[in-house]
Amino acid sequence: MKYTIGVDLGGTNIAIGLCDEALNIVDKGSTPTLSGRDGRLIVRDMAELAKTLIERNSLTLDDIKFVGIASPGSVDVKSGKVNRAFNLGLNDFPIADIFKEFLPVSEVRLENDANAAALGEALAGAARGTDCSVAITLGTGVGGGIIINKKIFSGGLNAFGAEIGHSVINVGGRQCTCGRRGCFEAYCSATALTDITRELMTELEIKKVPSLLFDAAKAEGKISARTAFTAMKSGDIYGKRLVDEYIMNLGEALSNIVNIFQPEVICIGGGVCNEGKYLVDPLVEYVNREQYTRDNEVRTKIVVAKLGNDAGIIGAAAL
Amino acid sequence: MKYTIGVDLGGTNIAIGLCDEALNIVDKGSTPTLSGRDGRLIVRDMAELAKTLIERNSLTLDDIKFVGIASPGSVDVKSGKVNRAFNLGLNDFPIADIFKEFLPVSEVRLENDANAAALGEALAGAARGTDCSVAITLGTGVGGGIIINKKIFSGGLNAFGAEIGHSVINVGGRQCTCGRRGCFEAYCSATALTDITRELMTELEIKKVPSLLFDAAKAEGKISARTAFTAMKSGDIYGKRLVDEYIMNLGEALSNIVNIFQPEVICIGGGVCNEGKYLVDPLVEYVNREQYTRDNEVRTKIVVAKLGNDAGIIGAAAL
Repeated sequence: MKYTIGVDLGGTNIAIGLCDEALNIVDKGSTPTLSGRDGRLIVRDMAELAKTLIERNSLTLDDIKFVGIASPGSVDVKSGKVNRAFNLGLNDFPIADIFKEFLPVSEVRLENDANAAALGEALAGAARGTDCSVAITLGTGVGGGIIINKKIFSGGLNAFGAEIGHSVINVGGRQCTCGRRGCFEAYCSATALTDITRELMTELEIKKVPSLLFDAAKAEGKISARTAFTAMKSGDIYGKRLVDEYIMNLGEALSNIVNIFQPEVICIGGGVCNEGKYLVDPLVEYVNREQYTRDNEVRTKIVVAKLGNDAGIIGAAAL
Repeated sequence: MKYTIGVDLGGTNIAIGLCDEALNIVDKGSTPTLSGRDGRLIVRDMAELAKTLIERNSLTLDDIKFVGIASPGSVDVKSGKVNRAFNLGLNDFPIADIFKEFLPVSEVRLENDANAAALGEALAGAARGTDCSVAITLGTGVGGGIIINKKIFSGGLNAFGAEIGHSVINVGGRQCTCGRRGCFEAYCSATALTDITRELMTELEIKKVPSLLFDAAKAEGKISARTAFTAMKSGDIYGKRLVDEYIMNLGEALSNIVNIFQPEVICIGGGVCNEGKYLVDPLVEYVNREQYTRDNEVRTKIVVAKLGNDAGIIGAAAL
């Protein structure tokens, strides 16, 4: 039996998994990324961790079919280079070649992290068994991955597509980090929900209006994407307003995805999904009401991603 | 040599072309659809016209590989049924089987008209030679067709996807015919531009503000999608405002397409494209400024569709 190694290169940690042919993670480990240091040092640690996994499972390099790396930024799959991974300080960086210098495996494959996670969920997670799915991660930003015919679709002209988070749902709306205004990400990332909550709280504070939003933030020690949900669950009308608006914007964006892709499944992931039914139930209702062909008997299922941080590892191992 | 027959079933006319293997239209004809009459009569006229083309080119049914039909509405490619083609009065209508009753060809293939037109442009029109393109038609509505790997992508779960015109670009915005608010179509169809122009003209009339919009409409005999462009070309500030807003909304929607698909080409078609450089030049500038990966050396080309009404015929003949 051959194994593959999946690497999820994150801004904080490098997570590595040794996977069997059925995409089970047989063994895994992680090490801090220490972003900002020379890229070669990051790759060295990555290769050493891979070597550790191989050795402690009594394997050799010959047992490894390939190493897959899921990286943030735009990746050039063909040349094995990472581009524009600015929070890692990597640009035009030949990660595949450098990895092979440190650990001479037969092949290193590269993919964008959101795309790899979508593939992981499609092959071994919440969209298992489907041919066409879309994965949306509601985190610091809004990541998107598109699976068509069980394969990653990352664009026609290049591999920089699937930036669903950077589709505008409100022309001229909230400023997005990408330079546009009104992106899906500018309303639905955890960061955006935190910012929007903070803005409303500032307004309430100025107007001296009481709200359980303040209690929720105090209990947690900070304003977060959780604050609005916590206040809503306690019956606060401002918390409810924030959550309703969040679900409306997310529902509109997911309805757009349904109308364009009619995927079998949309997997949503990221910290906001910890809200469970408080998020998912109204969201499903919203999307069912909004989508173009509302009389379909079989509709896109909206489900919470199952693999969590392992999605990137498994997706990378399945490239 | 085998031939194929492409049928473009429109609300007003049925256009049919006899195509050779290189997708040249060897002969063509058309007949009024007379929408609203029994669907069998529409199919009968379609089959008779096909028969005429076959006979006057000294061919027999054996020379015809298949007949492709491009129909409005949701089509069920597998069962050969047309659904929800409400302006033709057709629903759950087995068009492929009925066609064979009238003309016993070996095979009848079916596709949605916007998808077929996209395939036509990709194989023989403005996106010829590309693997991945998106076609957008700015007509009564906004039609969308997606080509990936030289094939129509019409959805994962069913063939009802590619409804790019029904993706919301303004949550809570203008009412769309589909029931949602703020769709791309509600801002960028010819109908929408006409409505938006009429709304501004009503406002100007009430306020007794002079504008060349009135002269443009008078000269044409009606308010149309052309009115704003005509007034703008004469230096009218209200005409310019309408055109600028139109290009902004269209530019945002096309930037969304670029960010998601990174297609090699976006073909735009429909009557609004008769404005030529007045539409295309500022649109290209807008999209280049807005797209996510602005430092790409090679970018999506935005071009006007070339085949016009023949796109549907050729696409159907190439199914």
